[in-house]
Parts: sequence; C-alpha cells; structure tokens
Amino acid sequence: MIVVLRPHTSPKGIEEVIAEISRLGYEPAPVHGATQTIIAAIGDETTHQTLESLTALPQVERVLRVQKRYKLASRESHPEPTVVRVGDLEIGGGKFVLMAGPCSVESEEQLLETARRVRQVGASVLRGGAYKPRTSPYEFQGLGKEGLRLLELARAETGLKIITEVLSERDVEHVSASADILQIGARNAQNFQLLIECARSGRPVLLKRGMSERIEEWLLAAEYILAHGNPNVMLCERGIRTFETYTRNTLDLAAVAIAKRESHLPVIVDPSQGCGRADLVAELCKGAVALGADGLLIEVHPNPAEAVSDGQQQVDFESFGRLVEGIKPFVAASGRSL
Amino acid sequence: MIVVLRPHTSPKGIEEVIAEISRLGYEPAPVHGATQTIIAAIGDETTHQTLESLTALPQVERVLRVQKRYKLASRESHPEPTVVRVGDLEIGGGKFVLMAGPCSVESEEQLLETARRVRQVGASVLRGGAYKPRTSPYEFQGLGKEGLRLLELARAETGLKIITEVLSERDVEHVSASADILQIGARNAQNFQLLIECARSGRPVLLKRGMSERIEEWLLAAEYILAHGNPNVMLCERGIRTFETYTRNTLDLAAVAIAKRESHLPVIVDPSQGCGRADLVAELCKGAVALGADGLLIEVHPNPAEAVSDGQQQVDFESFGRLVEGIKPFVAASGRSL
Amino acid sequence: MIVVLRPHTSPKGIEEVIAEISRLGYEPAPVHGATQTIIAAIGDETTHQTLESLTALPQVERVLRVQKRYKLASRESHPEPTVVRVGDLEIGGGKFVLMAGPCSVESEEQLLETARRVRQVGASVLRGGAYKPRTSPYEFQGLGKEGLRLLELARAETGLKIITEVLSERDVEHVSASADILQIGARNAQNFQLLIECARSGRPVLLKRGMSERIEEWLLAAEYILAHGNPNVMLCERGIRTFETYTRNTLDLAAVAIAKRESHLPVIVDPSQGCGRADLVAELCKGAVALGADGLLIEVHPNPAEAVSDGQQQVDFESFGRLVEGIKPFVAASGRSL
Amino acid sequence: MIVVLRPHTSPKGIEEVIAEISRLGYEPAPVHGATQTIIAAIGDETTHQTLESLTALPQVERVLRVQKRYKLASRESHPEPTVVRVGDLEIGGGKFVLMAGPCSVESEEQLLETARRVRQVGASVLRGGAYKPRTSPYEFQGLGKEGLRLLELARAETGLKIITEVLSERDVEHVSASADILQIGARNAQNFQLLIECARSGRPVLLKRGMSERIEEWLLAAEYILAHGNPNVMLCERGIRTFETYTRNTLDLAAVAIAKRESHLPVIVDPSQGCGRADLVAELCKGAVALGADGLLIEVHPNPAEAVSDGQQQVDFESFGRLVEGIKPFVAASGRSL
Repeated sequence: MIVVLRPHTSPKGIEEVIAEISRLGYEPAPVHGATQTIIAAIGDETTHQTLESLTALPQVERVLRVQKRYKLASRESHPEPTVVRVGDLEIGGGKFVLMAGPCSVESEEQLLETARRVRQVGASVLRGGAYKPRTSPYEFQGLGKEGLRLLELARAETGLKIITEVLSERDVEHVSASADILQIGARNAQNFQLLIECARSGRPVLLKRGMSERIEEWLLAAEYILAHGNPNVMLCERGIRTFETYTRNTLDLAAVAIAKRESHLPVIVDPSQGCGRADLVAELCKGAVALGADGLLIEVHPNPAEAVSDGQQQVDFESFGRLVEGIKPFVAASGRSL
Repeated sequence: MIVVLRPHTSPKGIEEVIAEISRLGYEPAPVHGATQTIIAAIGDETTHQTLESLTALPQVERVLRVQKRYKLASRESHPEPTVVRVGDLEIGGGKFVLMAGPCSVESEEQLLETARRVRQVGASVLRGGAYKPRTSPYEFQGLGKEGLRLLELARAETGLKIITEVLSERDVEHVSASADILQIGARNAQNFQLLIECARSGRPVLLKRGMSERIEEWLLAAEYILAHGNPNVMLCERGIRTFETYTRNTLDLAAVAIAKRESHLPVIVDPSQGCGRADLVAELCKGAVALGADGLLIEVHPNPAEAVSDGQQQVDFESFGRLVEGIKPFVAASGRSL
Repeated sequence: MIVVLRPHTSPKGIEEVIAEISRLGYEPAPVHGATQTIIAAIGDETTHQTLESLTALPQVERVLRVQKRYKLASRESHPEPTVVRVGDLEIGGGKFVLMAGPCSVESEEQLLETARRVRQVGASVLRGGAYKPRTSPYEFQGLGKEGLRLLELARAETGLKIITEVLSERDVEHVSASADILQIGARNAQNFQLLIECARSGRPVLLKRGMSERIEEWLLAAEYILAHGNPNVMLCERGIRTFETYTRNTLDLAAVAIAKRESHLPVIVDPSQGCGRADLVAELCKGAVALGADGLLIEVHPNPAEAVSDGQQQVDFESFGRLVEGIKPFVAASGRSL
Repeated sequence: MIVVLRPHTSPKGIEEVIAEISRLGYEPAPVHGATQTIIAAIGDETTHQTLESLTALPQVERVLRVQKRYKLASRESHPEPTVVRVGDLEIGGGKFVLMAGPCSVESEEQLLETARRVRQVGASVLRGGAYKPRTSPYEFQGLGKEGLRLLELARAETGLKIITEVLSERDVEHVSASADILQIGARNAQNFQLLIECARSGRPVLLKRGMSERIEEWLLAAEYILAHGNPNVMLCERGIRTFETYTRNTLDLAAVAIAKRESHLPVIVDPSQGCGRADLVAELCKGAVALGADGLLIEVHPNPAEAVSDGQQQVDFESFGRLVEGIKPFVAASGRSL
C-alpha cells in the first residue's frame, strides 16, 4: 500500500506512521518529496490487514492499495478462460450460449410452450423464476416449489438445461435439486451468506452484478464463491443504475470486455433487465456479442402484455426468432458459432 | 394507472388497449387529445396487477402509476409518528437518541471501554458488529457468537441497549436472543427473505437504505417488515452511491425530511458510513439533527488507526465527546432534547 | 399534460386546478378514481406554457408531460435518416465513417504524421483539438489559431475533412473558417449560446452528450441547433458519469440505438473519452458498430506516452491499424461498408 | 506522482518508465515490492506535465497524483476565510446572508413586490433571472436587457444588491453594468471561457457546482476565476444528479463542509434547485445552516403556480416568512447572526 502524508508533516509525525506500518507487518519505504512524504508499505496486501485505518491519524491524507484484491477470480491466477460445464453444455468456450424463457414461471402451458419455442430457435438453457424478488410485498412472489416442478417438467420434455434464481439460503438445497444453474440476482449481489451457500451446493452459479456494484466488487463477490470451493462461476452484466430514465438501467457493455480481461470467468449479458424495454433487447444483444460476451440471458414470453411480471421487457416468440437471426452475423464476426 | 398511447394510434389500437385494461379488472376512462390518447385505468393499484406489462403492446408508449405503492409505511395510513420502544427507551419521540460504538466488536476490552465512554457522554444504544459483511472474503468477518456474548456483557455492565447487524436468515434467531435491535445493512436492503425473517423475530428493526435504493424502494422494503406483522421499524439513511469520490458515499440528508413526511417511522442517520471520513462526521451530525432525524448511529473506537475494519470513519473518544457537545445547540434548536 | 391530485382533494380544490388549467389555455378533462382525481390537460405542450408550476398548489401531487418535447430532432417529424454532407463525404448513409487524430494538436510533425497514417488506414475525417477545455487552468490549453493553421495544412496535404472543438462564441467565426465540422464538447453540451452561434455558422455540428445529460436533454440541445436553422447535426455519445471508477466514463451504447430510433440524426461514438483507457477502445468500437452507430471518433497519437493531454486514452498507429481491421467484420455484419 | 507498474514487470520495462519520468522533469524514486514496483516521481505536479499519459505504456498500471491540483482556491494557500464584499455587504463573515427572489424576472410588478417582501423579511440580495438557460428552445428564455432594467429598478427602490445569471461571454459586460454579483449556472460550471470573462469583469462571482461535477473539479473551476485575477468568488452547492427521482437533484450538504475545509471561499446553498420541490426548501435551509453555509439562495415568487418557470420549486411570500423564522434558531446555534 501507499500511505500519503499531508504536506509539511513533521519528522515526528512521519516516524509515528512508519512505526504503525511496521507494527502491522509491512516494511515501510518512505519517499520524501518537495512538500509531501509518501510511504510505500511493502507486503502482501491480501494477507495483511489493510492500512486504510491509518487515515484516522491526522497526518495521513490517503492510503492507496497497490495490489488487486481478487486472486482466484483474476486472469493472472488462471490465464486460460474457464469453461463451465453443465452436463454436455459448455459455457465460455467457442460456442455462444442462449439462455431464454419467461421472467416468472406462471403455468405449465406458458412454460412448456416457451421452452419448446426457444429450444427450436437455438436456446440451450431455459430461464424462469420460481422465487421472485419483488420491490413491493404486494406483487406476485413466484410459484415456489410448484414453479420448480414445472421447470423440471420442461427439462424432461425439451432437454434444455434449467437456470432459476435462488433468494434464500434455505432454498439453496431444494433449488439445487431442480436447477442446473443457480442464479444470484442483482439485489443479492453482495448477500455473501447466500453466495457461500450456493458455492457449497456445487452447482454452477450465475452471479449478476449489483445495481451500483463496481467491477472490482463484482469480482470480489465471485471470489467469495471461488474461495468456498466452487469454480463454476459465470458473471452476468445486467445494467447499472444511473441518472438516465429512458431505460430502466444502463447496460454497461464495457464491463463485459473488462470482466473478460480481468477475469477468466465466462460473462453472460442480460439485456432484458439491462434496459427494461423489449424494443431495445435485440440491438443490445448485438452489442453484447460484439464486446465478447459468452452468452445471453433473455426474457421471452408467449404474450408479454399479459405477463404477471415485467411484461414490458419480455419479447414474444416472433421477436425472439428475429433476434436470434439478427445476432448470427455478429456471432460469426466475433469468431464464434451459435 | 395511466396508459399513454403513441401519437396517431388507430381507433382499433385504442380499443385493444381498453379491452386489456378491462380484462385486468380496471375501469378504463380514455381521454383523446390533439395527437395522443391517454387512458386512465380506475381501480386500486395495490390490489390489482400492474398494467406496466401493457407497454409490450406496440401502441402503448408508457404506463404511469398514480397511487403510492406503500400503504402501512405511509403517513396517510398512520398520521401520528411511530415511537419504537426498546425497553424504557423511546425512539421517534421528543428525545433525540444516540447510538454509538465500534464498527466491529474486536475484544472485551475494546468493547467495554467504548461502551462505558459512549454511555457517559449520552448514548443510550451500543452498536458493534459481530457479523460483518465485507467486500472481500479475505477481510475480517466478525467474531460471530463470541461478539454477541461480548455485546451482552457490555449491556449487563452499562445498561445500554444493543444494536447489531444480522446477515443471514439462519442467524436471526440467535442474534435476536442477544440484541435489542436488529440492523439490516445496505447490502441486504432488498434481501426480502432476511427482512421477513427479522419481521417475524418481533425485535425492532433498523433498516438501512441500499446504496442505490430510491426512497420509494426503501419504504417498500420497510413495508415488507410491516406487512409481516412487525410495526417496530426504523429507517436509516447511510449515504448513497454517486460519482463523487471525495467521500465514500453521498449522505442524502433531504431523504431524512422526505422519509419523515412520507412515512411515520423514525429516521436515524449514520454519518460514519455516510461519508467514510471521521473528519466530517461531527458536521454531518449537525445536518442530520437540523433535517429532523430522530437519532444518530455513530462509529466510535478507542484507537481508530488500529481498528480491524473501517478505522478511517471511526471517531475516537475525545472527538466523540466534542461531537456530542457540538450537536446540543442544534438539538435544542430543533425543539428536542438529548 | 396530466395533473395528478393528492388523495381526498376536496371538490373545491379540484375546481381550483381545473380553473388554472383553463386559464393557461388547455382544455381540462378530469377523471375521478377511487381515491384520487387526475386531470388530463388537452392542448399542444410544445406551444403552451408547462403546467409543472401547478405543483406549487398544495392539492397537486405531480404533473406529467405526455408529448415529446423535441420536434425537429424527432423521428416522427423526419422519418428518413438525415445524411450530413461534408463536401463529398456523407455521414449517416450506408458508409461507416472513421474520424481519427490526436487529442490535441501539438506540432506540425505530430499532426501530419497522424493525418497520413489515419488516412491510409481508412479515416475520412481528421480530429485534433486547437482549443482544449481543461479541468485545471494550469494544464495545456491548446495551440489556438496556430493549431487551426496546422489542421488546414493537414487537410491540404491529405484531403481529410477537419473536425475540431469550439469552446467560445467568439471563436465560432474563425474556427468555422478552418474546420469542416464544429465539435461541441461534453462540458458545453448545454451551453445554449454556443450552440446557437454554431447553428448560425452553417457548418455541420457534432454535438457531444453531456456527462450527466439525459437522452431527452441531449435531443433538446440538438433541437436548439435545428431550431436556429442548421439541419446538419450529428449526435455523439461519449460516455456518462457514473459510480464506476475502472473506466473514466461509462459508455452508454444503448443510447446509440435509442438516439437512432428517437431521432433521424447520425450518431457517432467516441470510445476514447467513453472509457478513458486505450486498451479498451478497440472493443468498444465493435460494440458501437453493432448498436448502429454511423461512425467513430477515435484519439490516435504517434506516441501516446508523451502526449501533452490524455495520453492514457490515445491509441498508437499500430493499435489503430489493428482496430480498423478488427471492426471490419462487424461493419459488414451490420450491412454497411467502411 | 506515483507510477504503479504491473506485477512482474521486467527490469528493462522498469528502466524505460524511469527514463520517461526523468525526461518529463521529475526525479524518479522506485520502490520494489514483493510482486510490484512503484515509482514515486518527485517534483511539483502543478507546474510539470502530468504523468498520466504514461499509462499508455503497457507495463504501467496506474498513475496517482499526490498533490492537490488547486492552489489559489485551497485553504493551505489562504488559511483565513475569504470575505467577499459587495458594497457594504459582507459574505463569508459572521453574518448569515439571504439571497432571494424569483426564478425569472417576469414583470415590474412581480419583481418589485417580491423585492420589497424579501427585504422586509431579512434578505440582503435580490435574485432574478434575466437570461434563462432552458432545456428546450421553446421555453421562456428570459426578458434579457429589460429584465436587467427591472433589477436595477428594484435595487434603486429597496437597496438590495442584485445577483443574476450570465449565460454568454458577450453578455458579461452589460450584465456587469447592472448586477452586483454574477451568477454562473450549473450548465456553465465548466464553460471556462465564460468563467474567464466573468473573472475579468471584476464583479464578485457566484459559481454553481455542475450537475455531475466532483468537488475537486468545482474548486478547479473556481481556480480559473482566481487565476485570472478575481478573488471574489463564492461557491454554490445546488444539488447533484443521481438516480433518485423523488427530488430533482440530490443536495450534497456534505459538500458544504468539505468546500469550507478545502477552500477559503464562502459557500452558498441553493435549496430550490437542490430539490426542485417547494415543500422541502425550508427543511433543507436548516441543514445548510447546520453544515456551515455562509448564505442561502432561495427562489421566491408572489404566486408560484403561475410562474413562467420552475413554479414547483418557488416558495410564496408566506412560506418564505416562515422559512426565515424557522432557520433563526439554527443560525444562532451555529454561532452566527442573520
């Protein structure tokens, strides 16, 4: 770390900081500038206590970290891209992956009809929420275990893999029994206890970025899962919260390229949450492909206007078909196949 | 709700929307303007399904809610301010409440020394984290049950009430057995399963605002607790995430006045998290008082430079004493007492 | 507009609002719901005074606009895409346009060397700042008129069109004499007097989006130029300011698709400002193409490490060559040519 | 500055950076850590070229500034608070200053009535916009020179000082002839040419913070005015743009305390723009006083519901009277007088 002292700190004040740095196990290396002294603190920042508390001293202006805080998630520690295997499906390899399905599982007919259709068009994973995190307690909270049963039914019929969100530590065990991939939503992006529980399930985990989570924090959340023994983590960009109101969120497509560079984990993009408008989804998908995403997570519904949740961001079957046709040239341009 | 149609929608397109509105149980009342038609949908928005999914129809431009989404949390439903009682302590009444203590419980000596000191200066509640949500899995995660034991010890000696954060649904039962007030942190602000579990414990709950949570969403999170049978909820403003980097967060003091107006719940301000800099805490406390907060939650440590977490935002004993002296004229100016 | 009254407003209170709406020239159409009344105010919102001031009345909760505020910039008013002609160059047609060059014009050698190189690789417009808006008064402010002279020299030699930023109303005349396209930077995105002056020059104008400008505001800024008689406006997305610190700005690529849909104006993307990191520029360019941008504005420097401004976001010649090769398959995938 | 190299940079790569640092006039002091080398670059950062361009080198990870970028605006350079004198009025001394008046100057009657009333209640400066920066070109743009004439009239009658916004370099001369204080609005916060022109006028300048301007950037904008020879600068916090939609802006009251600490300049708060809602203005004023503001800039209108601009944030005479009564105890608590 680097400890920046305030201008004109006395020699005694400098000595005091040097002593604290030593006490905390770092080797202090002071550099005296014209008006300000900085002290480089040599030592492994990921195993030593942070020196940030030193800013409590009046003569300390700032403390800066030098090393990256994530290890297992970093590209340095694992230069080859991670390929997450879900049965015979590979995510993060050369094949671009489509995950699609309704926001909420609503009924057997709704789910099966959707499953058949997205499979026909090229999806290999079926999404559908059985447990729904809703802003208001008065909104539809999902079908729960009945929803999981319907997802299993859809898998049995279509062979699609199943991804579904888990909201509670207590649900991890039975959701893991039904689902092929566990999804952590944006509201739980730093619910570390849930992350740890999902890690322990052994199931692949798709980890969404929080609404105002910095990329470093997102990778550190992934680090929680990796550090608890589960290497099968996928990152999912789903838009961040900004001042813009035209869209529900601002899809941060640069974050896709950054996550691919900083980390070895597959990156999936959720354009439906990312903009909250069905009419923009197809175009954002092209962007996601161009920036190097390994797959897409898209909300599809037989009749969005009657959806019990988030109809405004779900595309219908016909639009989904066109969308998949539309991204094909971009998948090819990016050197991959669908 | 109000459904805004696109300019020049055909009579047939208008009819289709009217039919959907009726089908969903609202009474449609169309108003035809020069170029655009709007349709007011009359009906209780909190019991009917939202019409937002109608934007999936190509002729629908936007859907606007009219009613407020929170009921139990609203001032309309409960015109008198709620006073939360914690034993003989009242929060939200005429007496201004100080909650203070270390970020993390680190040791018996650290905690008891702090407890004695903050009590002496006027605090009535002791804060201290036994379970810590840390951005990195490699950082100190709290003493857990041993931390709770030390908090009980401090209460036994000083008579202070105890507030501590709960991170996991599985911890609610035993944390409730030790703590007088359960704290929900910013990262779990929309972890609805944890909110419901805390509601069921019957303990008073202090609910922090999420890092990028709108005020409406914050009140809806409180609504989850109220709707699950627990009326003893306190709101806590702790800063929101913005582009500014001088402070760790941007303390939204307007939100204090807004929450007091929109809701009947007590509002507490956490200036330590709110700015992340010990040197600004005393001044922010004055602002919180002026804007009508019912109390403060302040991080105090015997030696911040050696704190195991967030030393940069903890004040030492001397500063805390000065801080309390400093706010007294403002508490008096606001017609309350300390 | 729609005026939403507070719940339980008295008939007298409703009448008062209706009277105000009439007085301001709208036809009021009240709709009475279960607990709340809304009043649709029929009339052209772009020619009548806004009703937003009515929220000053205690019984008015909110006022909502129905119509779009921009007219000339809207796709409705001009369904065909605008093609901006700069001599023989067309921007916004089927050909994808590359604008490239140094952040600042530094010297004849630097500029000419860059001009030759970017032309060779496929650029048709040379960028280069002669007047630089710098955060600090102590930073390099540009070569001014000497910079303009060098840009003219580069045009004479290479045939490239010239784009350069104008900072002051007083510079518009002489910058227009040298430049083919006037650039309005993000800091002046709502400097309406400068916009009007540029409109009057008759030169094509590239209008950057402000750091925290909503898309509606950006189009309204374009409306200022259009309404002052200059139809040759290009919009330029250059990243917005968010909480993320990995990049200097967050490039809002969804805004490209939105601007193309809402407006008929060409949209250019500036990935250099958009992320502030040379190592991400090539990937963001692919995303910009995929989302439908009509061109790119890229900072290129012979030796970025020695650039007098923003070296960290300028690419060198070799990187620029690779970048152009890299986007070709995406330009083809989007049905256009380079 | 501090140059942080990437882990495992070769000795040759380190040498290359050291040579560049020397070439740019700094003295390089490398410190070799376990995996990463940092190089402190000793030298005056405000007179040497920034080293940030060195991140263009592949082995450079980041470049960090050590020194503050503002000099004349800094508290270090000028430990005593600046008192701006406007005739016999002192701003930034022990007396708290009220600036009040309509958003726009609309008519002689409106302005004079307001001037008399705000003077009676304790204001010493009259605000009123003659030139209005409006988001849309179709909105009222101000009365211009006629507005200035009315402001002079109001001053002649009431003795109030006049503050009014200047939008254009070309207007500075004649606005300076009429106004006692020039106001730079948020949209022009980094319109440096306008700042320089205002500096040259010799008139005191009130500089609003931009919508997404960091505190450092705000102080650097002030530095532009100071460095061009005008020491009479007041900073004005008027809310920043965030994701919150309940208020128009998020008033950053912490910024008041920070600006007072980092700088010697007086700080004024504009709560009207700061929240965009008349019903919150009185409470925000108390907060502004508590955080150490030197004065307030408040929008007051005889009949806000009929105001031609921003009626929703203007308070009427009765509310303004109550507001002033309401802040008095807080002004006293802060050791000042009204």
